[in-house]
Amino acid sequence: MSIINKAAAIGGGVIGAGWVARLLLNGIDVSIFDPDPEASRKVSEVMKGARRAYKQMLPGGLPKEGKLTFAKTIAEAVADADFIQESVPERLDLKHKVLAEIDAHAPANAIVGSSTSGIKPTDMQVAMKKHPERLVVGHPFNPVYLLPLVEIVGGQQTFPEAIEVAKEIYASIGMKPVVVRKEIEAFVGDRLLEAAWREALWLVKDGICTVEELDDIMRYSFGLRWAQMGMFQVYRVAGGEAGMRHFMAQFGPCLKWPWTKLMDVPEFNDELVDLIATQSDEQANGLSIRELEKIRDDNLVAIMEALSKQNKGKGWGAGALHKDYTKQLAKLAAKPAAKADGKAKTAKPAKKAAKPAKAVKPAKTEKPKKKSGKKG
Amino acid sequence: MSIINKAAAIGGGVIGAGWVARLLLNGIDVSIFDPDPEASRKVSEVMKGARRAYKQMLPGGLPKEGKLTFAKTIAEAVADADFIQESVPERLDLKHKVLAEIDAHAPANAIVGSSTSGIKPTDMQVAMKKHPERLVVGHPFNPVYLLPLVEIVGGQQTFPEAIEVAKEIYASIGMKPVVVRKEIEAFVGDRLLEAAWREALWLVKDGICTVEELDDIMRYSFGLRWAQMGMFQVYRVAGGEAGMRHFMAQFGPCLKWPWTKLMDVPEFNDELVDLIATQSDEQANGLSIRELEKIRDDNLVAIMEALSKQNKGKGWGAGALHKDYTKQLAKLAAKPAAKADGKAKTAKPAKKAAKPAKAVKPAKTEKPKKKSGKKG
Repeated sequence: MSIINKAAAIGGGVIGAGWVARLLLNGIDVSIFDPDPEASRKVSEVMKGARRAYKQMLPGGLPKEGKLTFAKTIAEAVADADFIQESVPERLDLKHKVLAEIDAHAPANAIVGSSTSGIKPTDMQVAMKKHPERLVVGHPFNPVYLLPLVEIVGGQQTFPEAIEVAKEIYASIGMKPVVVRKEIEAFVGDRLLEAAWREALWLVKDGICTVEELDDIMRYSFGLRWAQMGMFQVYRVAGGEAGMRHFMAQFGPCLKWPWTKLMDVPEFNDELVDLIATQSDEQANGLSIRELEKIRDDNLVAIMEALSKQNKGKGWGAGALHKDYTKQLAKLAAKPAAKADGKAKTAKPAKKAAKPAKAVKPAKTEKPKKKSGKKG
Repeated sequence: MSIINKAAAIGGGVIGAGWVARLLLNGIDVSIFDPDPEASRKVSEVMKGARRAYKQMLPGGLPKEGKLTFAKTIAEAVADADFIQESVPERLDLKHKVLAEIDAHAPANAIVGSSTSGIKPTDMQVAMKKHPERLVVGHPFNPVYLLPLVEIVGGQQTFPEAIEVAKEIYASIGMKPVVVRKEIEAFVGDRLLEAAWREALWLVKDGICTVEELDDIMRYSFGLRWAQMGMFQVYRVAGGEAGMRHFMAQFGPCLKWPWTKLMDVPEFNDELVDLIATQSDEQANGLSIRELEKIRDDNLVAIMEALSKQNKGKGWGAGALHKDYTKQLAKLAAKPAAKADGKAKTAKPAKKAAKPAKAVKPAKTEKPKKKSGKKG
């Protein structure tokens, strides 16, 4: 089903292992490089969780898993991959080192995605001497094997064709690619998260609420809303009959009120870390991370499944995508032999990405595209 | 089931009508005052939507609805109410006028809740000459008849007993009361929303994404997460085996990066309103507000129902509450006659609130309470 023939994962932390899980469960072979001696155990823990979640999505049985190989070097991992996802820690020097090596050894037509949640692709691709034009940011959300979003961001040297192929690749493994129109640090998702996170730190530091109270305030109110409509659509509906203009006129002025402390960053000292870590321990109420992970995954599957039955059975938002994705996986599970003759399928997008474009056209100047994917 | 005998609603906009709907569907009589000549029609529109949503929650049938009366004055509306919810526009002068009138005419032991999403109760209760001690902020989230959260905030003159009774009252109509420990403008929920909203306005204004793209980025990623665990719990799990301290150490430094524009407020001019309203029209893709409302409500019910089956059948977060709430309503529906002899039940909490406390103890100094409600 997927247009990827062989994938490579560089980095096997929470995010890297999440990519590995999504790829393997789609029947794609993955070669991984991670110097951590614990990497194999950590990846297999994540795989266990992912398998468990996918079994709930697919009671009829899972597709045959891809084969996982642990490579000893980056060169070995990327040697015959047509899609490489980099998920190493967020340090520019490290990204440079790793991307240079990927670029030196990967096939010329392979697409390189970076999981960075904030570094600009332009700042990363300078380290790629051979084919910087095939680097895109492909920023996922944890748990990668369940949450569908991937933010795609191109840098100044990225070919628009590379972005198109990346979109196809991510969509082929059940994800929702959204292309960010202009390159900025932290893109869109983490800008929003960071804004809320700063404010949350202030609220806890100032003793307005505990982490548990803050979490409850989120998940019993706007968290439920945002699982199905984003902030703008929610406000459109809240504006009632008068619509969005009315809402904006009514709530715009509030922006001028002293309603956030965000102009300022709380000092990130041991005291704050202790306060939050201690409150977080209390909140967990004896549940281990593994137990919480299972509960989280069950909840996410249940929410997406519930949404897949809405909108007169067509599914809504992540639910519509979930419906298509589980169908795709079930089909794959029913035809375990189909993969063998699928080799040729990868040639098309890979070629597209590698074809020398007319000129190095910065991705951010491309025309706004038609709406991608199906309407929520 | 509820400890409210008769409620009054002052203001029948989207929020006020949402309160009316929740109360009526719990079998509670409501007297409403709203000078808008369209109020009756608007409330009945909201009632239609709420009835529709509750029918999905309760296929076995709804409780007998409370009786709705349109009062000609505030005095008439509150005359024999034991619970009054104020939901007038967010202007302090108007709040003062309305609260003074409520206070002058309501029974001495009635609890007064304000739906304000940002004004401090201390600043509002100065207008209440007789019983300022019974004012609490009871800040709900739209749609009030479905979303369970209510933030309770006391002012300097609020009796701790009033907060306790308000908690009981809101919980009795299926809500999740969370008491905010210290009084600040915008409390907790709207602080977080405002932070995200400001950032969102920048992202759209700067052309990084459209409102539809931003919404998709939310609802295909962290929106799904936040329907079931809040930000801190999510990050605890994301920290993996190393836990919260590790997560904080890893991501704390990012706070210093130039990742938000929040130090600054985008100018709220016609151009920005136009840009957002136009993009929002496109996003709606021909669906009317009413149609979107129905979809939203169906989605919310489906999500809460899905969560009610998680955690080994005990339910999780809003799902655990939803399970209890629908049980409570089903019981009420099965015993339509039970209400008649329930008059005496209100005496207890109402008395508690009115009893002259030892001294006017500011609510915000009260000791941290035991965890309220059931653990998610």
